This record gives sequence, C-alpha cells and structure tokens, in this order.
Amino acid sequence: MSSWRNEILTEKRLKLEDFGLFEGISETIVTTHQGLSPNAAPMGIIRKQDTTLIRLFKGSRTYQNVLAENFLVVNITNDPVAFVRYTFSEVQPEDIENISSPGREFPVLKAAQSWIAFECINTKITSEALVAELRPLRGHVGSFQPKAPNRGLNAVIEATIHATRYKMNEEEKYMKLIDFYEDIINKCGGEREKEAIRLLHTFL
Amino acid sequence: MSSWRNEILTEKRLKLEDFGLFEGISETIVTTHQGLSPNAAPMGIIRKQDTTLIRLFKGSRTYQNVLAENFLVVNITNDPVAFVRYTFSEVQPEDIENISSPGREFPVLKAAQSWIAFECINTKITSEALVAELRPLRGHVGSFQPKAPNRGLNAVIEATIHATRYKMNEEEKYMKLIDFYEDIINKCGGEREKEAIRLLHTFL
Repeated sequence: MSSWRNEILTEKRLKLEDFGLFEGISETIVTTHQGLSPNAAPMGIIRKQDTTLIRLFKGSRTYQNVLAENFLVVNITNDPVAFVRYTFSEVQPEDIENISSPGREFPVLKAAQSWIAFECINTKITSEALVAELRPLRGHVGSFQPKAPNRGLNAVIEATIHATRYKMNEEEKYMKLIDFYEDIINKCGGEREKEAIRLLHTFL
Repeated sequence: MSSWRNEILTEKRLKLEDFGLFEGISETIVTTHQGLSPNAAPMGIIRKQDTTLIRLFKGSRTYQNVLAENFLVVNITNDPVAFVRYTFSEVQPEDIENISSPGREFPVLKAAQSWIAFECINTKITSEALVAELRPLRGHVGSFQPKAPNRGLNAVIEATIHATRYKMNEEEKYMKLIDFYEDIINKCGGEREKEAIRLLHTFL
C-alpha cells in the first residue's frame, strides 16, 4: 500500500519540481495501461517554461496506450537497472503498484522515488510520432536520499540509448559508443551500474 | 547559520549513503582550508566496499591543503554551474559557510544538498599524486528534492573534465568531445546546464 502522506491531490498546488521534474529533458520511466495490462518504458519528459510535453514514436506500447487512454504516469528513479530493464523487457507484475483514483486505476513503479500522473491533452499526430501536452493530475513522493552525480549512472543511460539504435540497424558506430560508455561504467559505476551494463549485453 | 537538526555526530551512526555517497566514484565538490583560506574543487570520491578514498594530483590547492590539514569536506550537489565554477575559479566567500567544530573551524558550500567532513588517514604519496583513506567525522543533510536524471547535467560534468585536459595540452580531440557533449546539453539541459556550458567557454 502506498503512503498517502505526501500526495498532493489538487493540480494548483502540484509543482513538478517537488517531484523531480525540472526544465529540459528528464529521463524517466513512463508507466501506462490499457485495460488491466500495464507497460513501463524509459521516456524523456520535456519541460520548457510552462509547458510539459512527451514525444512518442509510432509503434511503441506507450504510444498505443497513450492514444487509447490519454493518460500516463511519469516515475522518477535513479536506478540504472530500471532504465535497461524497461527498455528491453516487459514490466513484471511485482514491480507495479496499482493506484486507485476516482474513475481510474493506474500502474506506478513500486521502486520510484516519486511519480506524477498526467492527462495527455492537445495531442498532435504526425506520420512518425505523437506529441502530447501533459497536465498533472496527481503526484506522490516516496522515500529518497540525496545522491552525488555518478558518471556511471549516466553512462548506462547513454549506452542504453545507443543500444536501441544498434538494435534498429546494427550500425557498428553505436557498438563503439556502447564500448566507450562501458569504460566509464567500469571506472566510475557502483555495483548497480555494473549489473545494468551486464543486463544490457544480454539484450544485444 | 547551519541547522543542526539532521547532523549526525558520532561516526558509528554515520552511513555515507544517507548523505549521497554511494559505491563507485561520486562526483562532488571538495572544500578544504589552510588557515583561514578556503578552497573548493570538483573531486571524485571513491567508495569500494568499506573503504572510501580520494586521489589528488600533486600541485592542486586541494592536494596542498590535505597534506597540511589531513582534513576535507565532501559537498554533494547536482548544480552543473558549481562543477564548472569550482574547476576554473576560486570559491567566493559568500558561497562558504564556516562550521565550528571542537578543535577546528572548516568551510562547507552553503548550496550543498549535504556534506560530510572527513579525516584523511593512511595517506600514500607517489611522485604524481596522493591517495588518502577518508574517515567520516561529521555530516549534515540540508534541503533537497528528488530529481530525474538529466543527460545535460552529466554532459556538463563530462565536458568540464575534457576542458581541463584541453587546457593542459590543447589537443583538438578534447575540443571535439566538448562539442559532442555541448550538443547533448543544448538538447536535454535546462537553463542551469546551459548557463554552465556558457561559463565553461569563458575559461577555454
């Protein structure tokens, strides 16, 4: 069960910074659903002045679910394994907590430091992608600690991005970039970053 | 004045994770002093199992101060401007808070999310560097928020590392790496990341 202590239920009081979403592109795990089936996938959330946007390429489960439900949850985490796992494999039921809200039940990641549920509005669809504005409905802050930047954590995120490109076209330059970031992970990462790069290799 | 509420004064209860220092190399700002003159410089803090280490190249102010005082403070921040500023310029008195401890007054960064004061022990000196073990004496957690990873923040840290290499030998490959990371900053960073890369260019 989720603690309700830190939830902020009215949109007017909901400041995205309090949940970890700042200006620029935040790397997050987005959970969506269609019926009872949850999905989790790493996604960048774009904040520019007063606007919050997501851009989703056609064909992904997140794209389909957002088109169907006009709803998504942004989960904040700095666990490197989560970024690799949800890029390449399905979310497991035990990773998910279902939150009941009036009119809707929706999935969030149990391990998230914080999450925000958004309504997707003004959705624009092109031949390759959709862009939706995100209107915050509800958020939750769980337990979290301060954490110094670790070059290895970021190198996992960069390597994962290049791995998805490599899997699309097998261009050698992406494998070289993965190797480049793997050196940083081996030098600077902790155990969790090293576990993440080992997991990444199982999907290549 | 510092709030004393979250300070943990006895070493046995001091868990480095609670202050943001995890396994691997944490990118931090280290403050040191010699007499009344404070210094701040970005430094990696190495944690491996039960050992916490710092490696300091000969010639830096941090090296000299650690040799003289056997003492340093690790400040945790995710402000990209701090990493650029303290790499290339002196800390300003208004950025510093002086903490009084029995037998010692020491400088910390006012803007740090948290800090830990360490005694440097078992210091080994080679021809180029010193390596010291760090024994935590005292820590403080200030105010902080959850924050999603931002590729731009890390790109500032990477660009700053390459900028110090470029300034040592003016090799063109480092300038190319700075350009590579600047593209990520422009795409993914918020205002603070963009301010940091502008500041970096003033030092090149």
